[in-house]
Amino acid sequence: MSFLIVSSQRDPKAWIDALKEQDPQIDLEVYPEVKDPEKVEFVLSWRHPHGIYKNYPNLKVIASMGAGIDHIIEDNDIPQHVKITRVIDEQLTKDMSVFVLSLILEHLRNLSFHYSSKEWKPLKYLRPSEVQVGIMGMGVLGVGVAEKLIQNKFNVTGWSRTKKEILGVTTYHGDEQLQDFLEASQILVCLLPLTSETENILNKRLFEKLPKGAYVINVARGPHLVEEDLLEMIERGHLAGAALDVFRTEPLPKDHPFWENQKIKITPHVASVTYPVTVAPQILENYQRMKAGNELKNVVNREKEY
Amino acid sequence: MSFLIVSSQRDPKAWIDALKEQDPQIDLEVYPEVKDPEKVEFVLSWRHPHGIYKNYPNLKVIASMGAGIDHIIEDNDIPQHVKITRVIDEQLTKDMSVFVLSLILEHLRNLSFHYSSKEWKPLKYLRPSEVQVGIMGMGVLGVGVAEKLIQNKFNVTGWSRTKKEILGVTTYHGDEQLQDFLEASQILVCLLPLTSETENILNKRLFEKLPKGAYVINVARGPHLVEEDLLEMIERGHLAGAALDVFRTEPLPKDHPFWENQKIKITPHVASVTYPVTVAPQILENYQRMKAGNELKNVVNREKEY
Repeated sequence: MSFLIVSSQRDPKAWIDALKEQDPQIDLEVYPEVKDPEKVEFVLSWRHPHGIYKNYPNLKVIASMGAGIDHIIEDNDIPQHVKITRVIDEQLTKDMSVFVLSLILEHLRNLSFHYSSKEWKPLKYLRPSEVQVGIMGMGVLGVGVAEKLIQNKFNVTGWSRTKKEILGVTTYHGDEQLQDFLEASQILVCLLPLTSETENILNKRLFEKLPKGAYVINVARGPHLVEEDLLEMIERGHLAGAALDVFRTEPLPKDHPFWENQKIKITPHVASVTYPVTVAPQILENYQRMKAGNELKNVVNREKEY
Repeated sequence: MSFLIVSSQRDPKAWIDALKEQDPQIDLEVYPEVKDPEKVEFVLSWRHPHGIYKNYPNLKVIASMGAGIDHIIEDNDIPQHVKITRVIDEQLTKDMSVFVLSLILEHLRNLSFHYSSKEWKPLKYLRPSEVQVGIMGMGVLGVGVAEKLIQNKFNVTGWSRTKKEILGVTTYHGDEQLQDFLEASQILVCLLPLTSETENILNKRLFEKLPKGAYVINVARGPHLVEEDLLEMIERGHLAGAALDVFRTEPLPKDHPFWENQKIKITPHVASVTYPVTVAPQILENYQRMKAGNELKNVVNREKEY
């Protein structure tokens, strides 16, 4: 039985080191060097070439290297019986929370404006207690960000597909409550999983329901956002601007109009970085659980797509 | 008896409105329109023309419009029996704390670098728990900032002239402990009062004791900083940069070399703004106390200069 690493865009070396450090005996292979496809039962996967998994007849588990599993699920050739797991990493949540707080405070205190304007022009600032932040997506990351913001005296609301109850957060759910949620969100933070339902959810119709002058933060996935709609709503003056950490194509192409828009603040997918050393233990635990025939941790509901 | 407002650089209108709102009967005068100098007992003051206060023989109290009283005390012609008071405003402390947190997070998460670089270049980031912030000045503002940073998981130390004990903060005091304090401060925040002892304290000798790559934040007063020394230490690569909200001359002159230095981040004295509406009640309370011959609140120790 073998453990296969499939990693596009990310050098697998750090993963190999971290896994071997924890389990020196492990039988690791790195795609595309697979000796015997029949032996592959467990794959650690990041943005794999679509279609390859149907070539491993005994594949039981695909473990995502990160919190998102959209890159696995968008491949239609993965047999239904194969389990998909994701990373749940406390550090990832902490880093995301600090990052979103940083983006919001930078915006409220006009730092990048002051830094780049090269003139003495004091602006009025808003205090956390005067601002309502709406978080779309109340999973582990959404809740972590909400808690960090509440601790820093922001007013926080949350929206999710199904009803959630979170201490200190006014929660909304489903299509019918989306409008109420949006109307009060001066800052909108997208932390939704990327599914067929949430793709393109950040579009003109949604932006129009936000109050005038709202600020949009996307730290989830690029395809949540309809890029032309964002540009149009900023151009029309309805949105004050946006901070984007994720994009449909990454790295963001050099000729993309976002680069030249003064009101769009770009960071290169740095909200939270998964460190193999921190995450290897939970991956190996699932590997052992699979071998022993036990129930896996952090399994994704393939119908809900997260 | 009259209440005189002396305000250079700030339009006194908001103060007049706020004071009259609280006390419609108050007998207000605004400098330089003073009918009878002998009647002036109480002055609300901001950057007054030096020497004028010796013309009011019955002056008892000079109340600063803000937290700092350096602009009053640097005038040598104020009789010793005149009491000087400062503003202690919870909102001022909160705003300062949020502002310093914003500056630090912006720096750690490289936001202005990413926003302005116009290229896809992920940088490693430091987490709050990996950073030690040293705060110089452990007055109301220093303690407020320390508490905000601790709540956000930073390691915090404090330095002050005399020994202080603050929960969760390792404190240092006096000249003999300054070096130990500086050697561990990856980020240095100046919140000292401006006195003859602290003027020019942010100089080359001090910067050299900071670890290589340290970042300096001055949110206190411009004259704390020896500007050429900061430029030199950044040029030499010893300091990573600085965020400055206060300057020797404000507005910072257009031809000042700070404007063109990529590693110096300038904000136009916006850390915390005193709102007359919030502060008028404490000013009026002291006015009533003076009239009744009672002890004043927030009196400054003129020897310590704060």
